[in-house]
Amino acid sequence: MSRRVTVADAAALLQEADDILLLLHQYPDGDTIGSGYALALALQALGKRVRPACSDPIPPKYTYLTEGVEFPQFTPQFICAVDVADVKLLGSLAEVGKTAQLCIDHHATNVEYATHLLLDAACGAAAMVVRRVIAALGVPLTPRMAACLYTGLATDTGCFKYPNTTPEAHRLAAELIEYGAPYAAINEAMFDRKSRARMEIERLELSSMQYHFGGRCAVMVITNAMIAEAGATEDDMEGLAPLPRQVEGVWVGVTLRQKADGGFKVSIRTGALADASAVAGYLGGGGHRGAAGCAVNRPLDEAIARVLDAIAHTVDGIDN
Amino acid sequence: MSRRVTVADAAALLQEADDILLLLHQYPDGDTIGSGYALALALQALGKRVRPACSDPIPPKYTYLTEGVEFPQFTPQFICAVDVADVKLLGSLAEVGKTAQLCIDHHATNVEYATHLLLDAACGAAAMVVRRVIAALGVPLTPRMAACLYTGLATDTGCFKYPNTTPEAHRLAAELIEYGAPYAAINEAMFDRKSRARMEIERLELSSMQYHFGGRCAVMVITNAMIAEAGATEDDMEGLAPLPRQVEGVWVGVTLRQKADGGFKVSIRTGALADASAVAGYLGGGGHRGAAGCAVNRPLDEAIARVLDAIAHTVDGIDN
Repeated sequence: MSRRVTVADAAALLQEADDILLLLHQYPDGDTIGSGYALALALQALGKRVRPACSDPIPPKYTYLTEGVEFPQFTPQFICAVDVADVKLLGSLAEVGKTAQLCIDHHATNVEYATHLLLDAACGAAAMVVRRVIAALGVPLTPRMAACLYTGLATDTGCFKYPNTTPEAHRLAAELIEYGAPYAAINEAMFDRKSRARMEIERLELSSMQYHFGGRCAVMVITNAMIAEAGATEDDMEGLAPLPRQVEGVWVGVTLRQKADGGFKVSIRTGALADASAVAGYLGGGGHRGAAGCAVNRPLDEAIARVLDAIAHTVDGIDN
Repeated sequence: MSRRVTVADAAALLQEADDILLLLHQYPDGDTIGSGYALALALQALGKRVRPACSDPIPPKYTYLTEGVEFPQFTPQFICAVDVADVKLLGSLAEVGKTAQLCIDHHATNVEYATHLLLDAACGAAAMVVRRVIAALGVPLTPRMAACLYTGLATDTGCFKYPNTTPEAHRLAAELIEYGAPYAAINEAMFDRKSRARMEIERLELSSMQYHFGGRCAVMVITNAMIAEAGATEDDMEGLAPLPRQVEGVWVGVTLRQKADGGFKVSIRTGALADASAVAGYLGGGGHRGAAGCAVNRPLDEAIARVLDAIAHTVDGIDN
């Protein structure tokens, strides 16, 4: 269990520390990178030795935040994780994470591995919590810090589209734009650019669309052959699961993604009229009401039939 | 020429008026509907007879804003246009528009047809200007008014993604959420739902993708046969032109959309490295630096060849 601390406490811990290592989670996204680098720059502005660290390289998409800033090497005296709910998410840095004195996070699922925990699960992005810490440290935002925080905020809220977008999220966006965050360029890079392989995998996925239960269920398939044909990498595959549910009139959207062993990882997305976790639970998986998943290790046609059977058994009124 | 008025002046004109007709533009979108209905509800709260009017029916996508509110019939004594830059955009109500006493708008291109004009071109949405007017009228926002204004704000800023998203736009979003705008449901309906025909036209469009100039130019084609195959309506075709430019590394994105007469309407989209209006201008069209268009009345292969020729002649360095 961690000791829960306030923003002022967390700022005081950082203010007293030096030689600070900031841990980002593996497969780093806009929020862990943006939050971690913003805090690193703020601590550097206070004259501290500080360095962000991640088990994986920063994806090219985000290097506009990390290039051109230098952080020194040193033996860490204070370890702080940013946007990391569990040491397991630190990859090769998990052992280092176990010695973390502080964690700054917004995940309600945080497993409380750090000595001190600053957590606000009402925040849509860790960047919102980090912004409060930087304010408590008394460091004025530079345009680079604003760009980092804006990236975290915008990516974790789906550019202010998701239900986690609070009034505070919008007010922070307003402030970050005023501090010089190049929001238009960031939004274009984050939300309006796709690789050629991604375009191709979307085309192939759309070609696989099937409708069932009078259009109340849409099913898409991504096979290993399709991934090979598109030349797609794991990065290109991100965020494909919501697509079938976007079709008007669909209660249950299903994506079957083939695994290396030939079986299928099944992602289920639902709106108000169906419970994704009930469908996934019927097949031995689990998740939340709106998004759940399971594995079905069968040939494609049989896998689809099993999923449809699970839907017929768990979703009231879908076969009327 | 209109007389330019302040927010207080516009509020005073409305305060003195009664039997007010509020004109929305043809092919109504989220901003003209949201702004117009919000203002109508505010004026109704002041005890006035008021009615929004549009030459076209409200698309089903937006009826959550307009259903369940009743506006009376009357002979208009005061006419106010909302989000209407030109009487030509009023369709069958153009003649009525010529007698407008007031226009509330955010388009820099407003042709000043109304007696009085409240214009702020720095606003990304007319909803931002209307919100100021409602504040000046002293009417507290209801959740329904907040939903109307949020819809206008979110749709005209691409859910806060476009460069026209100012700090004021974000602060207004925060306020509207606090006044009860069901932002999550609105965002899902506006930005995360597509018709089956739209899914199919996107698949066909993606199938038509060609790359030229070493990937610096992407071309997509939408023929009448494709539209028929997908069963797509005009509503389904909205917002397809930006797709080719979204591919990484593309300087010039081109969409050729076949017209009823067999020729092609060409949409050109560019980033910082090319000028769309120069390409379109070479072919007798025009537009802005980032988005421009022209018509090429030739068979498809020849039309594409002409566009590529125009690009080679007008975009420096693209064929290196």
